Amino acid sequence: MEEFRILEIKQSVFENNDRQADLLRSELKEQKTFLLNLMSSPGSGKTTTLTRVIEQLKDEMKIGIMEADIDSDVDAKTISGTGAKVIQLHTGGMCHLDADMTKQGIEGLGTEEIDLAILENVGNLVCPAEFDTGAVKNAMILSVPEGDDKPLKYPLMFSICDVLLINKIDVLPYFDFSIEKCTERVKKLNPDIKIIPISSRTGEGIDVFADWLREEVAEWKK
Amino acid sequence: MEEFRILEIKQSVFENNDRQADLLRSELKEQKTFLLNLMSSPGSGKTTTLTRVIEQLKDEMKIGIMEADIDSDVDAKTISGTGAKVIQLHTGGMCHLDADMTKQGIEGLGTEEIDLAILENVGNLVCPAEFDTGAVKNAMILSVPEGDDKPLKYPLMFSICDVLLINKIDVLPYFDFSIEKCTERVKKLNPDIKIIPISSRTGEGIDVFADWLREEVAEWKK
Repeated sequence: MEEFRILEIKQSVFENNDRQADLLRSELKEQKTFLLNLMSSPGSGKTTTLTRVIEQLKDEMKIGIMEADIDSDVDAKTISGTGAKVIQLHTGGMCHLDADMTKQGIEGLGTEEIDLAILENVGNLVCPAEFDTGAVKNAMILSVPEGDDKPLKYPLMFSICDVLLINKIDVLPYFDFSIEKCTERVKKLNPDIKIIPISSRTGEGIDVFADWLREEVAEWKK
Repeated sequence: MEEFRILEIKQSVFENNDRQADLLRSELKEQKTFLLNLMSSPGSGKTTTLTRVIEQLKDEMKIGIMEADIDSDVDAKTISGTGAKVIQLHTGGMCHLDADMTKQGIEGLGTEEIDLAILENVGNLVCPAEFDTGAVKNAMILSVPEGDDKPLKYPLMFSICDVLLINKIDVLPYFDFSIEKCTERVKKLNPDIKIIPISSRTGEGIDVFADWLREEVAEWKK
């Protein structure tokens, strides 16, 4: 198992988060690092999905993962077995990451030579949607057991994401979840969002997500 | 289907939330209304669990439900079919309810003659744990698909609850979730917590939760 650091994130002192986010994006553009902000409820499968997608992309690009949590290092431990570079960020109780906190993580990770950096945000469908982290793109996971009504209840999160991964489709037979209804509700909020049904357990659909990441990273490096 | 109101909650002006919470509890004690604050991640089954427990208790006591959400009225619609009094609270984007917001809900619901009031908090394992709502007891739901590692990642939530309902035990065969491991992690944070495995789909374990509520309501009315 690879080593990883635990970084205690300090609360931001900047009042204008949007400005800090734009600054971070410019820096990432210069060093040709693509940053994805991955959000979801607790337990919808962010870490497992990451282990799957790292498997598909690690031979083509250098990947760095930031695991943000209030406490514990279980996610960084999981990722450290994949060959990707990883750092665990502790948010000191904070329910989301803003741009300055993300920048602390990026600096802790060290992005020189990293092509694809992924921030696994705190598990929360509310607060992280309100803060631009400086990421190039936002992705979210909604898992089948959570229900297809979530776009109705957490509209902001579904509105600000570029990609929605519908995870745990292997358990569709055991839950009352309609991909069609969910898609309809999401597209009403966000017509341009890309929706990818996946199972991080069986690996189904992960190639589609990997293809999307591959294209985005190539585009960002131009 | 019964009628219900949608109340747009105003942000609190009080600086000392703990004081407001104590005040609300005294008022509830006077009018002999027991208030439960029910918390969980999005989609772990708060509303379905409530419909089940209302079914078991509605002939013995008058029940009022406050459904807090950022948007939508789907949960209040669901509850309005049960015979309980219900009000939908819109939090204006807020990720949690504090004591003053809860008081606005209580006033909107009208608790005269209500024996058991339940606040279904915003789906979020982080922020609601930080604010005393004025409830007499706190309960939370963790559902099997979310994983048994959640106590490690969201310790505050598990520390402040009097009851933990482990929901969706009907799908235990399809997920890698150990009730034993989960219990061990939770009890380490909170030795006095009562843990009740339930399935809001099949109804299993709901009678145990109903018994607990029955006793707490009786105790509060003394």
